[in-house]
Amino acid sequence: PPSRLPQLGVTVFSVMSALAQQHQAVNLGQGFPDFDGDPALLDAVDAAMRAGHNQYPPMPGVPALRQAIAAKIETLYGHAYHPDTEITVTAGATQGILTALLAVVHPGDEVIVLEPAYDSYAPNIALAGGVRVPVPLDPQTFRPDFDRLRAALTPRTRAIMINSPHNPSGAVWSADELRQLAELLDGTEVLVISDEVYEHMVYDGHTHQSVSRLPELAARSFVVSSFGKTYHVTGWKIGYVAAPAPLTAEFRKVHQYNVFSVNSAMQHGIAAYMGDPAPYLGLSDFYQRKRDRFRAGLAESGFVLRPCPGSYFQCVDYAGLRPDLAALDDMAMCQWLTREIGVAAIPLSAFYGGGSDAKLIRFCFAKKDETLDLALDRLKRI
Amino acid sequence: PPSRLPQLGVTVFSVMSALAQQHQAVNLGQGFPDFDGDPALLDAVDAAMRAGHNQYPPMPGVPALRQAIAAKIETLYGHAYHPDTEITVTAGATQGILTALLAVVHPGDEVIVLEPAYDSYAPNIALAGGVRVPVPLDPQTFRPDFDRLRAALTPRTRAIMINSPHNPSGAVWSADELRQLAELLDGTEVLVISDEVYEHMVYDGHTHQSVSRLPELAARSFVVSSFGKTYHVTGWKIGYVAAPAPLTAEFRKVHQYNVFSVNSAMQHGIAAYMGDPAPYLGLSDFYQRKRDRFRAGLAESGFVLRPCPGSYFQCVDYAGLRPDLAALDDMAMCQWLTREIGVAAIPLSAFYGGGSDAKLIRFCFAKKDETLDLALDRLKRI
Ligand SMILES: CSCCC(=O)C(=O)O
Ligand SMILES: CSCCC(=O)C(=O)O
Repeated sequence: PPSRLPQLGVTVFSVMSALAQQHQAVNLGQGFPDFDGDPALLDAVDAAMRAGHNQYPPMPGVPALRQAIAAKIETLYGHAYHPDTEITVTAGATQGILTALLAVVHPGDEVIVLEPAYDSYAPNIALAGGVRVPVPLDPQTFRPDFDRLRAALTPRTRAIMINSPHNPSGAVWSADELRQLAELLDGTEVLVISDEVYEHMVYDGHTHQSVSRLPELAARSFVVSSFGKTYHVTGWKIGYVAAPAPLTAEFRKVHQYNVFSVNSAMQHGIAAYMGDPAPYLGLSDFYQRKRDRFRAGLAESGFVLRPCPGSYFQCVDYAGLRPDLAALDDMAMCQWLTREIGVAAIPLSAFYGGGSDAKLIRFCFAKKDETLDLALDRLKRI
Repeated sequence: PPSRLPQLGVTVFSVMSALAQQHQAVNLGQGFPDFDGDPALLDAVDAAMRAGHNQYPPMPGVPALRQAIAAKIETLYGHAYHPDTEITVTAGATQGILTALLAVVHPGDEVIVLEPAYDSYAPNIALAGGVRVPVPLDPQTFRPDFDRLRAALTPRTRAIMINSPHNPSGAVWSADELRQLAELLDGTEVLVISDEVYEHMVYDGHTHQSVSRLPELAARSFVVSSFGKTYHVTGWKIGYVAAPAPLTAEFRKVHQYNVFSVNSAMQHGIAAYMGDPAPYLGLSDFYQRKRDRFRAGLAESGFVLRPCPGSYFQCVDYAGLRPDLAALDDMAMCQWLTREIGVAAIPLSAFYGGGSDAKLIRFCFAKKDETLDLALDRLKRI
């Protein structure tokens, strides 16, 4: 029988992680730390299991966790979401994004995506029956172009998906850009799906511009975040979506019939652990040191470094490295790096619906210092 | 902006659990045990966390768990699924069912559902753009009627959803019915989504008739099961889907962009725990004792018991109980029971797209003996 998604292959993250393993390469491709979560967090989850939190939690999430999330958002961004009606715990950010799209996109609705974009967005929109409308970010700075965004708006525009700090580029929206988005959407019914999973990784004095900072944006937005990224436990698959009550009501209609609810022991453990804000407040400093170490090493290689104001990804241009390598497209370059040099990376073309002919690849620096040093030793040999 | 799912409310399980809590009723509504998983299983998960299994597992699931699942299915039902290409670990059975539908249903495709059916099926089909075609089960025996099924098949039929042991009725398919299904579908391209989450709860010498027992059915089926039900950890939200490689490839296209992967520590813990088959092989005996205790108590009340050959649900007819109660519809009856008697139940009408005027309600007997006894004391007072 015919495929529902004929053009779709396996996500690039799986492909490159498998190749990295096959060649025993240092895996700077798929974004995950090679160090572990805080033992205190593991203790909290174990305590929750032993306390019997192993049956269905409430569908929207454990109350203590929703309260802790709401309190965090209010403290950091000044918006008071109601934990009962405006916060839903999800099985990771991706599930939150798909669920939001399934909840609000009607067949044929247009959804604007700023390219490059995380690779799940396009298939998520397709599954919701929507039409993806890509708007390019500036290829040098990865900043949004509000004239192009304005031109892309139509009466069929149902939502716009944004992502700051940005995967793959690390670009961070400014307060002014957030205001421009609010102005652009003023008077429309366009919704915003804001992927903020790297919210606690901003460097050099940048601040995270959550859409929840501006009431007029918060009123039309699904704010998506992830504990996996923040607490170094990407494999736990726990995130959340904050949205005004009417949007949350629609979200939960789908959520309850997708995963129904999310791992109870993990939710209780995270709720207890969130009492201390130090781990997420200190995350930017923690990763800025890694970024600086990695960039300093890369500066001695022939790669040209792009700026990295946020996220745990560093993009580099390899066009000037060697003529033979400059001839490779970025996927071939990542394969070559993995096989010949022993370092895996992700090609930026994977973040474009129609591909990209730029010579850009992405490294993840959420790694132990010795892992970064080993990768740098190998990269410098090119 | 207009709702994508305007007619949809909150699932009956959330509604009744909330009402039960509000009235401090014994909750025999939503299906979950009030006792805990095996401490050895909790130990195994804790050990997996401490061993560092906290980052993204492979998208289809941890290899050891997929191997253990394949080995179990082959031993019990005789079908050898390949763990690499035919087994996918899911965030619970519901996520598996929605994902299978999203993967294979094209807009306008028909999906046959045997009614009464679990309440997620209808919204799952709607989200996939499909058209639900309900075919009633026999209202007394809850057995499939193959003439009606044959009449419901059209060139647009994409899939049929079946569920044995059956929620809510507890009915268990016979080997002959399985063969009749195979014959019915012979020569068609109709797929089967087989919800087998109660596979290890069959009583009185019945055996579970997994569709994987018949090669011609296995070749067109997604077999869905759940560890939450089998291991008394419904809140962990871990299940799996077994399907032939071409169907699994389509399934994973969606899965990777829904949840991507499932909690790594839990997967490793369950994989280790599955080495011992005793817990699932002994489950039918364990629950049959509870069923018998519960039925014996209910026999002294005025409820008329329906047969319960499988699952952890007991359906009863309350039409002959008291004239005032017989006048209530089944939702009102469940509310009355919760408020006035202190025992929560689930109305069977919630499992019918168009409602039902039968006087049938469902109790879950996955409870400690003292919980069942307390509920029985209260029910006998009616
Ligand atoms: C779900 S695997 C991808 C992880 C990630 O966010 C990335 O590498 O971009
Ligand atoms: C996901 S809550 C419902 C649990 C269940 O399977 C049931 O009660 O039927």
